[in-house]
Amino acid sequence: MLLKNYDRIVFAGDSVTDMGSTNPVGEGLFDNLGQSYVRRVDNVLGALLPQYRFRVTNSGISGNTSRDLLERFDRDVISLKPDVVSIMIGINDVWRQFDTPAAFDNQVMPGEYEQNLREMITKAKACARAVVLMTPYYMEINPEDAMRARMDQYGEICRQLAKEYELPFVDLQQVFNDYFRTIDEGGNYTHHSTYIAWDRIHPNQVGATLIAKAFLEACGLKLRLTEK
Amino acid sequence: MLLKNYDRIVFAGDSVTDMGSTNPVGEGLFDNLGQSYVRRVDNVLGALLPQYRFRVTNSGISGNTSRDLLERFDRDVISLKPDVVSIMIGINDVWRQFDTPAAFDNQVMPGEYEQNLREMITKAKACARAVVLMTPYYMEINPEDAMRARMDQYGEICRQLAKEYELPFVDLQQVFNDYFRTIDEGGNYTHHSTYIAWDRIHPNQVGATLIAKAFLEACGLKLRLTEK
Amino acid sequence: MLLKNYDRIVFAGDSVTDMGSTNPVGEGLFDNLGQSYVRRVDNVLGALLPQYRFRVTNSGISGNTSRDLLERFDRDVISLKPDVVSIMIGINDVWRQFDTPAAFDNQVMPGEYEQNLREMITKAKACARAVVLMTPYYMEINPEDAMRARMDQYGEICRQLAKEYELPFVDLQQVFNDYFRTIDEGGNYTHHSTYIAWDRIHPNQVGATLIAKAFLEACGLKLRLTEK
Amino acid sequence: MLLKNYDRIVFAGDSVTDMGSTNPVGEGLFDNLGQSYVRRVDNVLGALLPQYRFRVTNSGISGNTSRDLLERFDRDVISLKPDVVSIMIGINDVWRQFDTPAAFDNQVMPGEYEQNLREMITKAKACARAVVLMTPYYMEINPEDAMRARMDQYGEICRQLAKEYELPFVDLQQVFNDYFRTIDEGGNYTHHSTYIAWDRIHPNQVGATLIAKAFLEACGLKLRLTEK
Amino acid sequence: MLLKNYDRIVFAGDSVTDMGSTNPVGEGLFDNLGQSYVRRVDNVLGALLPQYRFRVTNSGISGNTSRDLLERFDRDVISLKPDVVSIMIGINDVWRQFDTPAAFDNQVMPGEYEQNLREMITKAKACARAVVLMTPYYMEINPEDAMRARMDQYGEICRQLAKEYELPFVDLQQVFNDYFRTIDEGGNYTHHSTYIAWDRIHPNQVGATLIAKAFLEACGLKLRLTEK
Amino acid sequence: MLLKNYDRIVFAGDSVTDMGSTNPVGEGLFDNLGQSYVRRVDNVLGALLPQYRFRVTNSGISGNTSRDLLERFDRDVISLKPDVVSIMIGINDVWRQFDTPAAFDNQVMPGEYEQNLREMITKAKACARAVVLMTPYYMEINPEDAMRARMDQYGEICRQLAKEYELPFVDLQQVFNDYFRTIDEGGNYTHHSTYIAWDRIHPNQVGATLIAKAFLEACGLKLRLTEK
Amino acid sequence: MLLKNYDRIVFAGDSVTDMGSTNPVGEGLFDNLGQSYVRRVDNVLGALLPQYRFRVTNSGISGNTSRDLLERFDRDVISLKPDVVSIMIGINDVWRQFDTPAAFDNQVMPGEYEQNLREMITKAKACARAVVLMTPYYMEINPEDAMRARMDQYGEICRQLAKEYELPFVDLQQVFNDYFRTIDEGGNYTHHSTYIAWDRIHPNQVGATLIAKAFLEACGLKLRLTEK
Amino acid sequence: MLLKNYDRIVFAGDSVTDMGSTNPVGEGLFDNLGQSYVRRVDNVLGALLPQYRFRVTNSGISGNTSRDLLERFDRDVISLKPDVVSIMIGINDVWRQFDTPAAFDNQVMPGEYEQNLREMITKAKACARAVVLMTPYYMEINPEDAMRARMDQYGEICRQLAKEYELPFVDLQQVFNDYFRTIDEGGNYTHHSTYIAWDRIHPNQVGATLIAKAFLEACGLKLRLTEK
Repeated sequence: MLLKNYDRIVFAGDSVTDMGSTNPVGEGLFDNLGQSYVRRVDNVLGALLPQYRFRVTNSGISGNTSRDLLERFDRDVISLKPDVVSIMIGINDVWRQFDTPAAFDNQVMPGEYEQNLREMITKAKACARAVVLMTPYYMEINPEDAMRARMDQYGEICRQLAKEYELPFVDLQQVFNDYFRTIDEGGNYTHHSTYIAWDRIHPNQVGATLIAKAFLEACGLKLRLTEK
Repeated sequence: MLLKNYDRIVFAGDSVTDMGSTNPVGEGLFDNLGQSYVRRVDNVLGALLPQYRFRVTNSGISGNTSRDLLERFDRDVISLKPDVVSIMIGINDVWRQFDTPAAFDNQVMPGEYEQNLREMITKAKACARAVVLMTPYYMEINPEDAMRARMDQYGEICRQLAKEYELPFVDLQQVFNDYFRTIDEGGNYTHHSTYIAWDRIHPNQVGATLIAKAFLEACGLKLRLTEK
Repeated sequence: MLLKNYDRIVFAGDSVTDMGSTNPVGEGLFDNLGQSYVRRVDNVLGALLPQYRFRVTNSGISGNTSRDLLERFDRDVISLKPDVVSIMIGINDVWRQFDTPAAFDNQVMPGEYEQNLREMITKAKACARAVVLMTPYYMEINPEDAMRARMDQYGEICRQLAKEYELPFVDLQQVFNDYFRTIDEGGNYTHHSTYIAWDRIHPNQVGATLIAKAFLEACGLKLRLTEK
Repeated sequence: MLLKNYDRIVFAGDSVTDMGSTNPVGEGLFDNLGQSYVRRVDNVLGALLPQYRFRVTNSGISGNTSRDLLERFDRDVISLKPDVVSIMIGINDVWRQFDTPAAFDNQVMPGEYEQNLREMITKAKACARAVVLMTPYYMEINPEDAMRARMDQYGEICRQLAKEYELPFVDLQQVFNDYFRTIDEGGNYTHHSTYIAWDRIHPNQVGATLIAKAFLEACGLKLRLTEK
Repeated sequence: MLLKNYDRIVFAGDSVTDMGSTNPVGEGLFDNLGQSYVRRVDNVLGALLPQYRFRVTNSGISGNTSRDLLERFDRDVISLKPDVVSIMIGINDVWRQFDTPAAFDNQVMPGEYEQNLREMITKAKACARAVVLMTPYYMEINPEDAMRARMDQYGEICRQLAKEYELPFVDLQQVFNDYFRTIDEGGNYTHHSTYIAWDRIHPNQVGATLIAKAFLEACGLKLRLTEK
Repeated sequence: MLLKNYDRIVFAGDSVTDMGSTNPVGEGLFDNLGQSYVRRVDNVLGALLPQYRFRVTNSGISGNTSRDLLERFDRDVISLKPDVVSIMIGINDVWRQFDTPAAFDNQVMPGEYEQNLREMITKAKACARAVVLMTPYYMEINPEDAMRARMDQYGEICRQLAKEYELPFVDLQQVFNDYFRTIDEGGNYTHHSTYIAWDRIHPNQVGATLIAKAFLEACGLKLRLTEK
Repeated sequence: MLLKNYDRIVFAGDSVTDMGSTNPVGEGLFDNLGQSYVRRVDNVLGALLPQYRFRVTNSGISGNTSRDLLERFDRDVISLKPDVVSIMIGINDVWRQFDTPAAFDNQVMPGEYEQNLREMITKAKACARAVVLMTPYYMEINPEDAMRARMDQYGEICRQLAKEYELPFVDLQQVFNDYFRTIDEGGNYTHHSTYIAWDRIHPNQVGATLIAKAFLEACGLKLRLTEK
Repeated sequence: MLLKNYDRIVFAGDSVTDMGSTNPVGEGLFDNLGQSYVRRVDNVLGALLPQYRFRVTNSGISGNTSRDLLERFDRDVISLKPDVVSIMIGINDVWRQFDTPAAFDNQVMPGEYEQNLREMITKAKACARAVVLMTPYYMEINPEDAMRARMDQYGEICRQLAKEYELPFVDLQQVFNDYFRTIDEGGNYTHHSTYIAWDRIHPNQVGATLIAKAFLEACGLKLRLTEK
């Protein structure tokens, strides 16, 4: 298992990470952690691995692109002296190219995205024992959808960087693709994207649990619900 | 497994069940389900058993004693035509004996408690395929604490009724006792009640996950987080 | 032109019609009309056909299925003595089959949908000079997406009924399909669904203007922006 | 047509321009653009010219006189690097002379008004491809009304400056005069100022559509609603 | 003087009378009386005629037409056993003909207006010692403005009824006409309607003081501010 | 008359002056002037002397002692270039000696009070054409009440300074004494302090009108309500 | 001591009793008891007589006269089956005669007051073991003040009824008179009414503690703070 | 008695001291003092020792550890020039070790706690006539509970420092232990911790009165409620 007792785990990201957490950094009592996959990770670690104690910190801020996250990375991630860092960024880099197509300065192109990620990985590796990288995603099963196709490019950049830096890696696009391809006994797909996300981006708590499960798996932990 | 595809599972209870759910009955989209163990059950079923579809309904109302719950049981549980009913009630029956000791009419004594439970079980069994009973609890490890001792009496009544009616049964007092007795490698207890509850009654999401895990176990499902 | 001076035009529908209008029925001063396509219709009629006076009424209520709308049709549409009635319903009939797949009683199947629509058309025709029918839609360009495919079935029911009752008809699915297929000089698609809707259902004001334009066209009025 | 693909169009003005937009500058998603004629321009461009992409920015702030606007012109207009600038200012310069007649320092006299406008035009021309000038107005059909007469003086200054600098020009006073002189088939005026404005200044959305239409016409685009 | 010690004076009307008063009837402590001319009357009676005690009651409700007022006249006026009744109604009867010209059922035509007023006067005379009638008005100095011309018709109906029933009468249109025709030493008009009303209908406190002064004059009391 | 056309009149004071006005300085449109005697002065000047235009400014702030007012006098009074300044201060200097008797540093003793007033008068005289001084007061008719007796001392200091600097002077204590001594025809006192003030300090609008009347009288203007 | 273990003590009254308590009846957890003398009684009983358990209930409602209280006495006092009833009413009966002198129907004259009290005493005696009567008061030390003189009349009625019915009796007017006559070592009065009440009626918590102390004394309990 | 006339008493602490007081320092009118034991001290001093005047100041801030309090001690305690200082701190130093066990930097260990207290005592003694020290506590009667045991260590540090510096000392843990051991006539414990605290830390007003009583006793004042 990648995690050790008393580890501080800092999750850097955008609104998918944030989900109502205290900004810029939330942790500890009350609802400071927000309701995203970060809270799901904290829940199952606290309940199912009671022999350990972890410190889970949410450094997600809604609307962030990789450019925004890089700008605050020292303050909101590095200065917290994390043992483990998780980075999941890029959705807004792509989204702004489609929802406000003429506002170029809010969009982050692949070249800059790769450069931003690279800087963050370098900083994180210099201070943390482990760095986990998760891809951006779009809950669209049609790979020819323009925004899905674009998002896949950014996911591919993640994959290459994870390989280059030898990081635990989560392909979230694949996680959701698989989920939407689950079939019931009759052979029908059981769940459409509307079951776990309002807008194909922001997961509800079921969707957040899927991300948490994938993150934990990258840490060498398997979350399962099985018949006894 | 006790649960079947498309089952409607209705959770009857007090504030531990309610936790911000829509009143009198909450389910479906948005945060209608609240943030209690009911939501935790819904999360892991949706994420970890994707080949099934369940309908999870929260019929908890804050402050309810067994007397209050019985009074609304037809409207908020039976009329929903549930396939599975979960009942967790009694904390307020006991609590009022201690926080407002001279206000007798808000307190429910053991005799009435047993009678109320019995009526609810009978009603539920008549319409649902399965009825799960969970004990009230007090997150106090000292069995000589007056309120803990009193709560144990009510838990015992649950146990007897579960036996008599042959119901899947959850001893939540034991769940919490065990949790607080977890030790780390150094042999020290890892978690105090303040880690999962503000007031030794209302669990945070980690505590709610413990209850969810215990409920699922009574349904024949084991929730685990293990090293691969 | 289908519209006459002093006509009262009543729009029946769900949240796409409602968009913050006064419930159950909104019209006249302030923001009572809401911000949906109904307000867009009112805007361009008032500004661009100043020689006429119309009374535009919004009878949309968020979350309505065809079953809900039928139940309140007498009160919120017929009793207003409309000259023209517009009906756009069915999105929630389909949506609930995907976002809460186990909650059957909130879902409306094709047979009932057709029957509900038929009753509303009959009532409306009995009191109004004209009845306009608009299809439900899903801003998904992939016809194999499960929810889009299902929505197309409901749209087809609309088309058949419009033909049978000889009603002015708007195929909104086609309107959006065409919009997303618009190409720029370089041959690229100019607009993705995220440009006009957060969740592929609820249009922003640009999207609402597209619906308004299509409605007006069904009334024999062409809204255009052209170089002089 | 004066507008080109990907143009950034910045609208400078007072509350007639602002109408709930994000201050000091609003654009893009949600309701940041406000509900004024700026939103109407964005709506029809987005819906009716889908082959283009424009970036529409609202730099209106409620209560501004030409003095206030000049003071923030560099920050809220020039620094945004606009392709097209629209200026509509002066209503408050005049209004304060009538609603608070003894508070001289909130009033802007014609000499200063001309000077303020001249400075803004010069700045805007230096950075933008096109500058559109719109007159202030008062929705009063009686030219002898003291405030209308005064407003006409300021409108005349606009006209002279537009001529001198060869700017596309909109006489909004004339737009409203014409609107209120529209007659129906019986020869009666169809619409009184109360139909489109609460206070003869702030247009509702119908009134805002009239301004949008006039702005677009100055850009070489004709908005029409015609029988097919 | 028409008023006697301990008189209860009830003011019936619309938003000009209401202005934030408790609905349906406001009087006594705190701000129950609202901020309209009714409060101005109460202020000057209490401060300048301290040897008397009066009970001033506000029965104005925003948006009321004469039809609405008649409907609640028994409950909100007659049942209070007033000594003096003041009636000022009709502005909304006319206004709705201009701001929502196609919504006929919210408009009250002259014939019905006269009939409504007649019924209220008859009821009031039967229970009160005195009934004061005040005309509706529009703060527009141009008598050819369509809404002003229409309002004058309703004012004329008031005048005729006041004559027929021999009631103390206030021509508020004349009060405002005179006010806007006041000239300073240089022969210029000193005040435009924007000085006392945002929308030519709802007076600020200066405007409300003008109405109060006129009401008191009809009661035989002259409010003056003079050099010693 | 002390006032001239276009005069700016600035009222400096505490909560009796403030009463909801915009802080630190309120004037002009909406309710910026608050609801105190300052608004009453503005009302009657605007309504009853329409041939003049005045600019009335409220520089009162709740809770101010003479020490607090002196500290902000340059910013909130002198820098406004007033033509006429009114000063009414001292109530809190005394009140704090009684409601929080051990908190010495919030209390202002007579020596400092005189010095504070003297400085403000000197500053005001240097920039304004006229300075009006009004005494603090306590609506207590019993001169032996400890707080009333203390307030009288402060009032006497005002009187002496007004004499020394030859300022128009208002003895507000006398104004209220007289008001509470008004008798009706039967020889009984008509009004108790509870009729015009909740706490014997903060006047309601009737009480504020008494202060306004007294202020105007010091300016050579008599406000009267008389039988014709 | 008049009180016995497990007694339910119900306090009937007006705003002096209510002070933010839950209406119509408040008790138990949170701030349901409000912040009046009732809460002070509960505090010192709970803290200083820990060997007993009492149930303290607040049946005060702001603004109540004796007429209002009588009307709800069965519902809010008798039906609660109290062991001890405390009645303190009459302040508003008197106050309305002074703050709204012409609104006769809100005032309760001495004859009716006596009758109302008599009925409540009779009802209370029939169900409770003890009934405590407390006088209304006015924190005015001048007995010639008109409202104080009037209040003394009502207090005298209380005294006579307490004597007639042999009730434990509290003369609150005397309690406050004594308090304001307390002198320090220098022979000066230490506290003015403004120290314990904003408006000479509503006590702050210090004033409420004085009432609580007096109530407890009538119950045979002495609250003291003494040097050891 | 330790207290003298006109003493300023400053209470430094955490949320138990704060309870809604104005931050950082609250005193005087309205609810600035909050609702904690500080307000209870103020109540009984003001009501039961009326011959004295005291100035009571609340310098408690929710969530403070001894580290936080030390950091603001100069600003919030010393600069106020207190005559008497009360210090009650340490609960959060301990609590954070249990509710967020992995967040070390929010926890204060015994060594630092002693040092922090020592610095505060030294500062306070240098400026105040008396310094009162109160222990932190946990309303848990089981001394083997991990958090109670830990709290006892911190209480012991207090005791040692009080001895070393010869300070009036309050053992609050003992106060609560005794309270929960009170027995009724039947020999049963009368009150459980839930009667005076929601979470075994934050006392309600009854619990706050217990602390106030203990504080006053350390000052040589005995608060008693006794049969006459």
